Amino acid sequence: MDSGKLLTDRVADEIVRTIIGQQLKAGDKLPNEFELASTLGVGRSTIREAIKTLVSRNIVEIRRGAGTFVSYRNGVSEDPLGLEFIKDRAQVAADLLELRFMLEPRLASLAAGNATDKEIQQMVSLCDACEAALQAGEDFSDRNTQLHAAIARASGNVVIPNLALILCGPSSVLRSTPSPKMQRELIETHREIVTAIAARDGIAAHDAMLLHLAACRRSQMEGALT
Amino acid sequence: MDSGKLLTDRVADEIVRTIIGQQLKAGDKLPNEFELASTLGVGRSTIREAIKTLVSRNIVEIRRGAGTFVSYRNGVSEDPLGLEFIKDRAQVAADLLELRFMLEPRLASLAAGNATDKEIQQMVSLCDACEAALQAGEDFSDRNTQLHAAIARASGNVVIPNLALILCGPSSVLRSTPSPKMQRELIETHREIVTAIAARDGIAAHDAMLLHLAACRRSQMEGALT
Repeated sequence: MDSGKLLTDRVADEIVRTIIGQQLKAGDKLPNEFELASTLGVGRSTIREAIKTLVSRNIVEIRRGAGTFVSYRNGVSEDPLGLEFIKDRAQVAADLLELRFMLEPRLASLAAGNATDKEIQQMVSLCDACEAALQAGEDFSDRNTQLHAAIARASGNVVIPNLALILCGPSSVLRSTPSPKMQRELIETHREIVTAIAARDGIAAHDAMLLHLAACRRSQMEGALT
Repeated sequence: MDSGKLLTDRVADEIVRTIIGQQLKAGDKLPNEFELASTLGVGRSTIREAIKTLVSRNIVEIRRGAGTFVSYRNGVSEDPLGLEFIKDRAQVAADLLELRFMLEPRLASLAAGNATDKEIQQMVSLCDACEAALQAGEDFSDRNTQLHAAIARASGNVVIPNLALILCGPSSVLRSTPSPKMQRELIETHREIVTAIAARDGIAAHDAMLLHLAACRRSQMEGALT
């Protein structure tokens, strides 16, 4: 079994090298099973096993009847930091927020310098969408994550987009829904960040993000008390 | 195949829940195949498949003839941020360093407040080991990573230890070895960080880490030029 596993892993690594070598991007189709088997000189069942491993690592995804494609998750697993193993969920949420305090103000500042006009438009749309959701009484946590990821991406740091998926992902929020007053504050401080980025004002973007995170912290504490 | 994959993944999730529920820690042994199969009401081949998935996710490891154990890697994959997919290695190294500038000074400051005496002793030993390696003309990059991870861990933030494995891991260093003068500077600035942490001086630890990272940046640039 061990040597079988090793072969599968070696083949999986070869497939990753193929993806990188051919510069395939998210959404691009991989060569089919036959081609991979003949290129890599192994049986089709080994290719299938290796593909399964790559699916579980979020590197590729299988679309039924269409083939195997490079995943949009870029090889970032659901829980890349193993946070599910930490029992105290409130501690995880608080410590993720502590990390966001260290990172996000500077990322917002970088975004003010580096964001393209298109990226700024996207941030404005996400702000609008959050606001509309609030007014309709709907949950806006998904769009919230998307907005923070968009700001992080616009920083220009190539490592950040993948990290942002973790920092602002599900582990960062406790289950409870913030009070209406708090929701409004979260959304207003979002707007201030994006306005500062659109004005290309790095210092204002930095400070607006700090104020937003302070609101997030109060929201967490409110959630912990209720 | 899809539904087979789903069953394996569901069983893998169940095993993860078992690990968490029984509060198993790194190095602890899992119930054997028979027990898992009967507890979870599935066949042994499904258990074996699920275990394979968990091995590839670094959640468990198989020791031949001894059984299956919770992995010391805590579910952190080899490349949790999918950095291997970014072609420009110099950009990855530079941007990881940018992140370290955002995080590590504050982590050093937190460590000055929160480190236990035992953790401080460990940092001093790692400093000594780096220095001894330098004098013997040996590579000290492993101990360097361990020292930064120890400082990060001592911050008390529960998310950090797993993140530090990425930030200070292999992707963060370009291949080239720093010049002897630069190596000496890296090691001297290490010592200053640890001395400040041992003196429980958060501000000095913060600033010493900044100076150390500035040396790391010059080291990267030196490497890029040679």
